[in-house]
Amino acid sequence: MKVTVVKNVLDANDRIAAENRELFDRHKIYVINLMSSPGAGKTSLVERTIVALRDNYRIAVIEGDIQDTYDADRIAKLDIPVVQINTGGGCHIDGNMIREALPAFDLSKIDFLIVENVGNLVCPAEFKIGENVKIMLLSTPEGADKPSKYPLMFQESSALLINKIDLMPYVDFDLEKAKRDSLALHKDLKIFEVSCKTAAGLDEWIAWLTRRIDAFKK
Amino acid sequence: MKVTVVKNVLDANDRIAAENRELFDRHKIYVINLMSSPGAGKTSLVERTIVALRDNYRIAVIEGDIQDTYDADRIAKLDIPVVQINTGGGCHIDGNMIREALPAFDLSKIDFLIVENVGNLVCPAEFKIGENVKIMLLSTPEGADKPSKYPLMFQESSALLINKIDLMPYVDFDLEKAKRDSLALHKDLKIFEVSCKTAAGLDEWIAWLTRRIDAFKK
Repeated sequence: MKVTVVKNVLDANDRIAAENRELFDRHKIYVINLMSSPGAGKTSLVERTIVALRDNYRIAVIEGDIQDTYDADRIAKLDIPVVQINTGGGCHIDGNMIREALPAFDLSKIDFLIVENVGNLVCPAEFKIGENVKIMLLSTPEGADKPSKYPLMFQESSALLINKIDLMPYVDFDLEKAKRDSLALHKDLKIFEVSCKTAAGLDEWIAWLTRRIDAFKK
Repeated sequence: MKVTVVKNVLDANDRIAAENRELFDRHKIYVINLMSSPGAGKTSLVERTIVALRDNYRIAVIEGDIQDTYDADRIAKLDIPVVQINTGGGCHIDGNMIREALPAFDLSKIDFLIVENVGNLVCPAEFKIGENVKIMLLSTPEGADKPSKYPLMFQESSALLINKIDLMPYVDFDLEKAKRDSLALHKDLKIFEVSCKTAAGLDEWIAWLTRRIDAFKK
Protein backbone atom coordinates (compact mmCIF):
# COMPACT_ATOMS: atom_id res chain seq x y z
CA MET A 1 0.00 0.00 0.00
CA LYS A 2 2.74 2.40 1.03
CA VAL A 3 4.78 1.32 -1.99
CA THR A 4 1.83 2.00 -4.28
CA VAL A 5 1.48 5.56 -3.04
CA VAL A 6 5.17 6.22 -3.53
CA LYS A 7 5.06 4.73 -7.00
CA ASN A 8 2.15 6.96 -8.00
CA VAL A 9 4.01 10.02 -6.77
CA LEU A 10 7.06 9.03 -8.79
CA ASP A 11 4.98 8.23 -11.89
CA ALA A 12 3.26 11.61 -11.70
CA ASN A 13 6.62 13.28 -11.27
CA ASP A 14 8.06 11.41 -14.27
CA ARG A 15 5.25 12.72 -16.46
CA ILE A 16 5.91 16.33 -15.46
CA ALA A 17 9.66 15.83 -15.87
CA ALA A 18 9.04 14.52 -19.41
CA GLU A 19 7.02 17.64 -20.19
CA ASN A 20 9.82 19.83 -18.89
CA ARG A 21 12.20 17.83 -21.07
CA GLU A 22 10.12 18.49 -24.18
CA LEU A 23 10.19 22.18 -23.41
CA PHE A 24 13.96 22.14 -22.93
CA ASP A 25 14.39 20.21 -26.20
CA ARG A 26 12.26 22.70 -28.08
CA HIS A 27 14.51 25.51 -26.83
CA LYS A 28 17.73 23.48 -27.11
CA ILE A 29 18.51 23.97 -23.44
CA TYR A 30 21.02 21.59 -21.87
CA VAL A 31 20.09 20.97 -18.22
CA ILE A 32 22.15 19.55 -15.38
CA ASN A 33 20.73 18.53 -12.00
CA LEU A 34 23.44 19.06 -9.40
CA MET A 35 23.20 17.03 -6.18
CA SER A 36 25.27 16.43 -3.04
CA SER A 37 25.29 16.44 0.74
CA PRO A 38 24.86 19.82 2.42
CA GLY A 39 28.06 21.82 2.18
CA ALA A 40 29.88 19.65 -0.38
CA GLY A 41 30.46 22.68 -2.62
CA LYS A 42 27.58 22.76 -5.13
CA THR A 43 27.26 26.55 -5.24
CA SER A 44 31.02 26.98 -5.52
CA LEU A 45 30.99 24.60 -8.47
CA VAL A 46 28.13 26.54 -10.06
CA GLU A 47 30.11 29.77 -9.67
CA ARG A 48 33.26 28.24 -11.18
CA THR A 49 31.29 26.71 -14.05
CA ILE A 50 29.55 29.98 -14.85
CA VAL A 51 32.82 31.91 -14.97
CA ALA A 52 34.38 29.26 -17.24
CA LEU A 53 31.45 28.98 -19.66
CA ARG A 54 29.65 32.32 -19.68
CA ASP A 55 31.48 33.55 -22.78
CA ASN A 56 30.38 30.47 -24.73
CA TYR A 57 26.82 29.85 -23.56
CA ARG A 58 23.86 31.80 -22.23
CA ILE A 59 23.54 30.33 -18.73
CA ALA A 60 20.68 30.35 -16.20
CA VAL A 61 20.45 28.85 -12.73
CA ILE A 62 17.69 27.46 -10.52
CA GLU A 63 18.63 27.25 -6.85
CA GLY A 64 16.79 24.80 -4.61
CA ASP A 65 16.79 25.32 -0.87
CA ILE A 66 14.40 24.61 1.96
CA GLN A 67 14.34 28.32 2.70
CA ASP A 68 16.37 31.53 2.23
CA THR A 69 18.07 32.93 -0.90
CA TYR A 70 21.68 32.68 0.21
CA ASP A 71 22.85 30.66 -2.80
CA ALA A 72 20.75 32.55 -5.34
CA ASP A 73 22.24 35.80 -4.04
CA ARG A 74 25.73 34.41 -4.73
CA ILE A 75 24.75 33.56 -8.31
CA ALA A 76 22.96 36.88 -8.90
CA LYS A 77 26.24 38.66 -8.17
CA LEU A 78 27.60 37.04 -11.35
CA ASP A 79 24.82 38.75 -13.30
CA ILE A 80 23.25 35.46 -14.37
CA PRO A 81 19.45 34.90 -14.43
CA VAL A 82 18.62 32.93 -11.31
CA VAL A 83 15.42 31.69 -9.70
CA GLN A 84 15.26 30.47 -6.13
CA ILE A 85 12.93 27.58 -5.34
CA ASN A 86 12.16 27.38 -1.62
CA THR A 87 10.78 23.94 -0.89
CA GLY A 88 9.44 25.00 2.52
CA GLY A 89 10.68 21.89 4.29
CA GLY A 90 10.78 19.64 1.24
CA CYS A 91 13.93 17.55 0.93
CA HIS A 92 14.34 17.63 -2.87
CA ILE A 93 13.33 19.46 -6.04
CA ASP A 94 10.71 17.72 -8.17
CA GLY A 95 9.51 18.16 -11.72
CA ASN A 96 6.62 20.40 -10.80
CA MET A 97 8.79 22.86 -8.89
CA ILE A 98 10.91 23.26 -12.02
CA ARG A 99 7.82 23.70 -14.16
CA GLU A 100 6.60 26.44 -11.84
CA ALA A 101 9.98 28.17 -11.93
CA LEU A 102 10.43 28.25 -15.73
CA PRO A 103 8.05 31.13 -16.58
CA ALA A 104 10.49 33.42 -14.73
CA PHE A 105 13.01 32.87 -17.55
CA ASP A 106 13.04 33.77 -21.23
CA LEU A 107 13.76 30.24 -22.45
CA SER A 108 14.66 31.45 -25.94
CA LYS A 109 17.73 33.09 -24.39
CA ILE A 110 19.16 30.10 -22.49
CA ASP A 111 21.63 27.49 -23.76
CA PHE A 112 22.54 25.90 -20.46
CA LEU A 113 20.48 25.61 -17.28
CA ILE A 114 22.06 24.56 -14.00
CA VAL A 115 19.70 23.29 -11.31
CA GLU A 116 21.24 23.11 -7.85
CA ASN A 117 19.19 20.67 -5.83
CA VAL A 118 18.58 20.69 -2.06
CA GLY A 119 21.62 19.44 -0.12
CA ASN A 120 20.69 15.81 0.48
CA LEU A 121 22.35 12.58 -0.59
CA VAL A 122 19.11 10.55 -0.51
CA CYS A 123 15.84 11.92 -1.85
CA PRO A 124 16.89 14.09 -4.84
CA ALA A 125 18.19 11.00 -6.65
CA GLU A 126 14.62 9.65 -6.95
CA PHE A 127 13.03 12.65 -8.63
CA LYS A 128 13.60 13.49 -12.30
CA ILE A 129 13.19 17.13 -13.22
CA GLY A 130 13.69 16.93 -16.99
CA GLU A 131 17.46 17.20 -16.85
CA ASN A 132 19.90 15.90 -19.48
CA VAL A 133 22.20 14.56 -16.81
CA LYS A 134 22.45 14.30 -13.05
CA ILE A 135 25.80 15.37 -11.61
CA MET A 136 26.91 14.71 -8.05
CA LEU A 137 29.58 16.07 -5.77
CA LEU A 138 31.22 14.16 -2.95
CA SER A 139 33.59 16.16 -0.75
CA THR A 140 36.62 14.53 0.83
CA PRO A 141 35.69 15.35 4.47
CA GLU A 142 32.52 13.26 4.06
CA GLY A 143 34.53 10.05 3.83
CA ALA A 144 34.99 7.27 1.31
CA ASP A 145 32.14 5.15 2.68
CA LYS A 146 29.48 7.20 0.89
CA PRO A 147 29.11 5.08 -2.29
CA SER A 148 28.15 2.01 -0.30
CA LYS A 149 25.81 4.01 1.95
CA TYR A 150 24.03 6.13 -0.66
CA PRO A 151 24.18 3.97 -3.80
CA LEU A 152 21.24 5.40 -5.76
CA MET A 153 22.81 8.84 -6.10
CA PHE A 154 25.96 7.27 -7.58
CA GLN A 155 23.93 5.02 -9.88
CA GLU A 156 21.78 7.87 -11.19
CA SER A 157 24.58 10.36 -11.82
CA SER A 158 26.53 10.64 -15.08
CA ALA A 159 29.48 12.34 -13.44
CA LEU A 160 30.92 12.48 -9.93
CA LEU A 161 33.09 15.38 -8.85
CA ILE A 162 35.20 14.51 -5.83
CA ASN A 163 35.52 17.98 -4.36
CA LYS A 164 37.75 19.57 -1.68
CA ILE A 165 40.68 17.55 -2.93
CA ASP A 166 42.81 20.31 -1.35
CA LEU A 167 41.77 18.98 2.08
CA MET A 168 43.22 15.50 1.41
CA PRO A 169 46.26 16.06 3.68
CA TYR A 170 43.96 16.87 6.63
CA VAL A 171 41.17 14.30 6.34
CA ASP A 172 41.11 10.50 6.28
CA PHE A 173 39.73 10.05 2.80
CA ASP A 174 40.58 6.90 0.86
CA LEU A 175 40.40 8.29 -2.68
CA GLU A 176 41.05 4.97 -4.39
CA LYS A 177 38.32 3.25 -2.39
CA ALA A 178 35.86 6.04 -3.15
CA LYS A 179 36.56 5.75 -6.88
CA ARG A 180 36.57 1.95 -6.88
CA ASP A 181 33.27 1.69 -4.98
CA SER A 182 31.64 4.37 -7.13
CA LEU A 183 32.61 2.55 -10.32
CA ALA A 184 31.41 -0.75 -8.86
CA LEU A 185 27.96 0.84 -8.55
CA HIS A 186 28.09 2.53 -11.95
CA LYS A 187 30.82 1.45 -14.33
CA ASP A 188 30.32 4.35 -16.78
CA LEU A 189 30.45 7.04 -14.10
CA LYS A 190 32.85 9.80 -15.12
CA ILE A 191 34.93 10.85 -12.11
CA PHE A 192 36.73 14.17 -11.64
CA GLU A 193 39.00 15.08 -8.75
CA VAL A 194 38.58 18.78 -8.14
CA SER A 195 38.88 21.66 -5.71
CA CYS A 196 36.36 24.43 -6.22
CA LYS A 197 38.50 26.46 -3.84
CA THR A 198 41.81 26.23 -5.72
CA ALA A 199 40.29 25.39 -9.15
CA ALA A 200 42.41 22.22 -9.33
CA GLY A 201 40.98 19.69 -11.78
CA LEU A 202 38.17 21.93 -13.01
CA ASP A 203 39.52 22.23 -16.58
CA GLU A 204 38.71 18.58 -17.20
CA TRP A 205 35.17 19.03 -15.86
CA ILE A 206 34.62 22.08 -18.05
CA ALA A 207 35.95 20.26 -21.13
CA TRP A 208 33.68 17.27 -20.49
CA LEU A 209 30.67 19.50 -19.94
CA THR A 210 31.43 21.55 -23.08
CA ARG A 211 31.54 18.39 -25.19
CA ARG A 212 28.18 17.32 -23.75
CA ILE A 213 26.51 20.68 -24.36
CA ASP A 214 27.91 21.00 -27.89
CA ALA A 215 26.84 17.46 -28.84
CA PHE A 216 23.33 18.20 -27.57
CA LYS A 217 22.96 21.53 -29.35
CA LYS A 218 24.31 20.27 -32.71
CA MET B 1 -4.69 16.94 0.10
CA LYS B 2 -0.97 16.39 0.00
CA VAL B 3 -0.61 18.12 3.38
CA THR B 4 -3.28 15.87 4.89
CA VAL B 5 -1.43 12.72 3.84
CA VAL B 6 1.83 13.96 5.32
CA LYS B 7 0.10 14.99 8.52
CA ASN B 8 -1.47 11.54 8.90
CA VAL B 9 1.90 9.92 8.43
CA LEU B 10 3.42 12.16 11.09
CA ASP B 11 0.50 11.61 13.48
CA ALA B 12 0.80 7.86 13.11
CA ASN B 13 4.53 8.11 13.68
CA ASP B 14 4.04 10.23 16.80
CA ARG B 15 1.79 7.56 18.29
CA ILE B 16 4.38 4.83 17.75
CA ALA B 17 7.15 7.10 19.07
CA ALA B 18 5.09 7.69 22.23
CA GLU B 19 4.74 3.92 22.70
CA ASN B 20 8.50 3.52 22.30
CA ARG B 21 8.94 6.28 24.87
CA GLU B 22 6.72 4.46 27.37
CA LEU B 23 8.82 1.34 26.90
CA PHE B 24 12.04 3.29 27.41
CA ASP B 25 10.61 4.95 30.53
CA ARG B 26 9.60 1.60 31.96
CA HIS B 27 13.18 0.37 31.54
CA LYS B 28 14.77 3.72 32.48
CA ILE B 29 16.60 3.93 29.18
CA TYR B 30 17.90 7.35 28.15
CA VAL B 31 17.76 7.66 24.36
CA ILE B 32 19.48 10.12 22.04
CA ASN B 33 18.65 10.52 18.35
CA LEU B 34 21.83 11.60 16.56
CA MET B 35 21.44 13.46 13.27
CA SER B 36 23.68 15.23 10.73
CA SER B 37 24.66 15.48 7.09
CA PRO B 38 26.42 12.45 5.60
CA GLY B 39 30.01 12.30 6.78
CA ALA B 40 29.77 14.90 9.55
CA GLY B 41 31.17 12.41 12.07
CA LYS B 42 28.20 10.74 13.77
CA THR B 43 29.78 7.30 14.04
CA SER B 44 33.05 8.76 15.31
CA LEU B 45 31.08 10.61 17.99
CA VAL B 46 29.27 7.40 18.92
CA GLU B 47 32.62 5.61 19.27
CA ARG B 48 34.10 8.40 21.42
CA THR B 49 30.96 8.55 23.57
CA ILE B 50 30.94 4.79 24.14
CA VAL B 51 34.57 4.74 25.20
CA ALA B 52 33.99 7.64 27.62
CA LEU B 53 30.80 6.28 29.20
CA ARG B 54 30.95 2.49 28.98
CA ASP B 55 32.28 2.11 32.50
CA ASN B 56 29.34 4.10 33.93
CA TYR B 57 26.39 2.95 31.83
CA ARG B 58 25.23 -0.10 29.92
CA ILE B 59 25.14 1.24 26.37
CA ALA B 60 23.43 -0.01 23.21
CA VAL B 61 23.37 1.40 19.70
CA ILE B 62 20.96 1.39 16.76
CA GLU B 63 22.56 2.31 13.45
CA GLY B 64 20.38 3.67 10.66
CA ASP B 65 21.60 3.47 7.08
CA ILE B 66 19.98 3.09 3.69
CA GLN B 67 21.96 -0.08 3.23
CA ASP B 68 25.12 -1.87 4.42
CA THR B 69 26.42 -2.48 7.96
CA TYR B 70 29.58 -0.41 7.80
CA ASP B 71 28.78 1.73 10.87
CA ALA B 72 27.33 -1.14 12.90
CA ASP B 73 30.51 -3.10 12.25
CA ARG B 74 32.54 -0.23 13.70
CA ILE B 75 30.40 -0.24 16.87
CA ALA B 76 30.40 -4.03 17.20
CA LYS B 77 34.20 -3.88 17.45
CA LEU B 78 33.72 -2.03 20.74
CA ASP B 79 31.77 -5.02 22.04
CA ILE B 80 28.55 -3.02 22.46
CA PRO B 81 25.10 -4.44 21.51
CA VAL B 82 24.23 -2.92 18.15
CA VAL B 83 21.37 -3.33 15.69
CA GLN B 84 21.56 -2.11 12.11
CA ILE B 85 18.39 -0.71 10.56
CA ASN B 86 18.58 -0.67 6.78
CA THR B 87 15.91 1.68 5.48
CA GLY B 88 16.20 0.33 1.93
CA GLY B 89 16.16 3.76 0.32
CA GLY B 90 14.34 5.57 3.12
CA CYS B 91 15.83 8.90 4.09
CA HIS B 92 15.24 8.78 7.85
CA ILE B 93 14.49 6.47 10.78
CA ASP B 94 10.91 6.52 12.04
CA GLY B 95 9.23 5.30 15.19
CA ASN B 96 8.19 1.99 13.72
CA MET B 97 11.70 1.07 12.61
CA ILE B 98 12.86 1.57 16.19
CA ARG B 99 9.96 -0.52 17.51
CA GLU B 100 10.90 -3.32 15.14
CA ALA B 101 14.55 -3.15 16.21
CA LEU B 102 13.98 -3.25 19.98
CA PRO B 103 13.23 -7.00 20.39
CA ALA B 104 16.86 -7.62 19.40
CA PHE B 105 17.96 -6.10 22.72
CA ASP B 106 17.49 -7.11 26.34
CA LEU B 107 16.02 -3.78 27.45
CA SER B 108 16.47 -4.62 31.11
CA LYS B 109 20.22 -4.41 30.53
CA ILE B 110 20.42 -0.99 28.86
CA ASP B 111 20.86 2.41 30.53
CA PHE B 112 21.66 4.48 27.48
CA LEU B 113 20.61 3.92 23.86
CA ILE B 114 22.26 5.84 21.04
CA VAL B 115 20.34 5.95 17.75
CA GLU B 116 22.42 7.11 14.81
CA ASN B 117 20.02 8.35 12.15
CA VAL B 118 20.48 8.29 8.37
CA GLY B 119 22.88 11.02 7.19
CA ASN B 120 20.45 13.72 6.13
CA LEU B 121 19.95 17.27 7.36
CA VAL B 122 16.28 17.42 6.33
CA CYS B 123 13.90 14.52 6.87
CA PRO B 124 15.09 12.95 10.17
CA ALA B 125 14.16 16.15 12.04
CA GLU B 126 10.47 15.52 11.33
CA PHE B 127 10.19 12.01 12.75
CA LYS B 128 10.16 11.32 16.46
CA ILE B 129 11.40 7.91 17.51
CA GLY B 130 10.75 8.06 21.27
CA GLU B 131 14.05 9.74 22.10
CA ASN B 132 14.76 11.87 25.16
CA VAL B 133 16.69 14.37 23.09
CA LYS B 134 17.73 14.98 19.51
CA ILE B 135 21.40 15.81 19.06
CA MET B 136 22.89 17.17 15.86
CA LEU B 137 26.37 17.47 14.43
CA LEU B 138 27.50 20.13 12.00
CA SER B 139 31.03 19.74 10.63
CA THR B 140 33.13 22.76 9.76
CA PRO B 141 33.70 21.83 6.08
CA GLU B 142 29.93 22.04 5.52
CA GLY B 143 29.94 25.80 6.02
CA ALA B 144 28.30 28.25 8.39
CA ASP B 145 25.22 28.79 6.19
CA LYS B 146 23.59 25.57 7.38
CA PRO B 147 21.40 26.99 10.21
CA SER B 148 19.59 29.32 7.82
CA LYS B 149 19.21 26.58 5.19
CA TYR B 150 18.12 23.68 7.41
CA PRO B 151 16.38 25.41 10.33
CA LEU B 152 14.15 22.58 11.55
CA MET B 153 17.08 20.37 12.53
CA PHE B 154 18.53 23.17 14.66
CA GLN B 155 15.14 23.97 16.20
CA GLU B 156 14.45 20.33 17.10
CA SER B 157 17.84 19.51 18.60
CA SER B 158 18.77 20.02 22.25
CA ALA B 159 22.49 20.13 21.55
CA LEU B 160 24.64 20.97 18.54
CA LEU B 161 28.15 19.60 18.25
CA ILE B 162 30.24 21.62 15.81
CA ASN B 163 32.63 18.88 14.73
CA LYS B 164 35.94 18.77 12.82
CA ILE B 165 37.05 21.90 14.62
CA ASP B 166 40.59 20.67 13.83
CA LEU B 167 39.95 21.55 10.17
CA MET B 168 39.24 25.23 10.94
CA PRO B 169 42.62 26.42 9.57
CA TYR B 170 41.87 24.78 6.20
CA VAL B 171 38.21 25.59 5.59
CA ASP B 172 36.25 28.84 5.37
CA PHE B 173 34.00 28.31 8.35
CA ASP B 174 32.64 31.33 10.21
CA LEU B 175 32.28 29.79 13.67
CA GLU B 176 30.74 32.87 15.26
CA LYS B 177 28.13 33.16 12.51
CA ALA B 178 27.27 29.46 12.82
CA LYS B 179 26.76 29.80 16.56
CA ARG B 180 24.88 33.09 16.31
CA ASP B 181 22.50 31.81 13.61
CA SER B 182 21.94 28.53 15.47
CA LEU B 183 21.02 30.37 18.66
CA ALA B 184 18.75 32.73 16.72
CA LEU B 185 16.76 29.65 15.66
CA HIS B 186 16.85 28.03 19.08
CA LYS B 187 17.97 30.17 22.00
CA ASP B 188 18.37 27.24 24.42
CA LEU B 189 20.49 25.15 22.07
CA LYS B 190 23.60 23.88 23.86
CA ILE B 191 26.60 24.21 21.54
CA PHE B 192 29.86 22.26 21.79
CA GLU B 193 32.94 22.79 19.64
CA VAL B 194 34.59 19.42 19.20
CA SER B 195 36.87 17.26 17.13
CA CYS B 196 36.02 13.58 17.17
CA LYS B 197 39.42 13.04 15.56
CA THR B 198 41.58 14.76 18.21
CA ALA B 199 39.03 14.49 21.07
CA ALA B 200 39.16 18.27 21.57
CA GLY B 201 36.10 19.59 23.39
CA LEU B 202 34.57 16.18 24.01
CA ASP B 203 34.93 16.33 27.81
CA GLU B 204 32.29 19.04 27.95
CA TRP B 205 29.91 17.00 25.80
CA ILE B 206 30.41 13.93 27.97
CA ALA B 207 29.83 15.95 31.16
CA TRP B 208 26.61 17.45 29.77
CA LEU B 209 25.37 14.06 28.62
CA THR B 210 26.22 12.46 31.96
CA ARG B 211 24.20 15.09 33.81
CA ARG B 212 21.25 14.45 31.51
CA ILE B 213 21.36 10.67 31.88
CA ASP B 214 21.79 10.85 35.67
CA ALA B 215 18.91 13.33 36.06
CA PHE B 216 16.69 11.02 34.00
CA LYS B 217 17.59 7.85 35.85
CA LYS B 218 17.21 9.36 39.31
